[in-house]
Amino acid sequence: MQSLADIASDYAALLAKGEALAAAEKYWASDIIAFEPAKSEAGDPAIAMGKPAAIARLTRWLETNAMSELLIDGPFVTGDQFALFIDMEIVRRATGERQPFSEIATYTVREGQIVEERFFYG
Amino acid sequence: MQSLADIASDYAALLAKGEALAAAEKYWASDIIAFEPAKSEAGDPAIAMGKPAAIARLTRWLETNAMSELLIDGPFVTGDQFALFIDMEIVRRATGERQPFSEIATYTVREGQIVEERFFYG
Repeated sequence: MQSLADIASDYAALLAKGEALAAAEKYWASDIIAFEPAKSEAGDPAIAMGKPAAIARLTRWLETNAMSELLIDGPFVTGDQFALFIDMEIVRRATGERQPFSEIATYTVREGQIVEERFFYG
Repeated sequence: MQSLADIASDYAALLAKGEALAAAEKYWASDIIAFEPAKSEAGDPAIAMGKPAAIARLTRWLETNAMSELLIDGPFVTGDQFALFIDMEIVRRATGERQPFSEIATYTVREGQIVEERFFYG
């Protein structure tokens, strides 16, 4: 089984390459709970329970948005969690509009898999 | 009982004023668990269990270090947690040496009190 530090590094590297879905497929546990601050513009709930629901929410977001100019600070490991500071421009696929966006992401790891993902932003 | 948003705002405001101990006294639960990435320079363990141990660790840190140029981004609330992005200069009291320092802090709130504090930094 990979160490927490190895999982954190690989996960951050996949995100930095724009491969958020591949990172999710590889590391999210089947019973992951994924928290956003609020429900999405597409109406998805703030809390996604389980990998299928969380993957579906991410997929819907990526259908209408792209991530550009992605900069990731971290991973920073503390106990059974790692955190990333993510800075990017969100590109609205429909209009090409670009929106600067920063967030903090934390991940809880159990037995080599991510069991909780949590995003923080204003 | 204060809302999570009110607690987060007040806690961040106290930290920004340099009143970390007052913030801890006011909001930490008696059974708080406070996580650092590693044990401290003073030899305190990475995980402090309970308010007395966590307050003692913070007090020891403040005896040898001061926080200057404190900038706090947040609070950002998600579910039962809030996060802060903290940027500062740590001033070593013995030498006056200044060290730029950035960290992510997350706080879990239950019944109006902080039951978990977790710091992430590189």
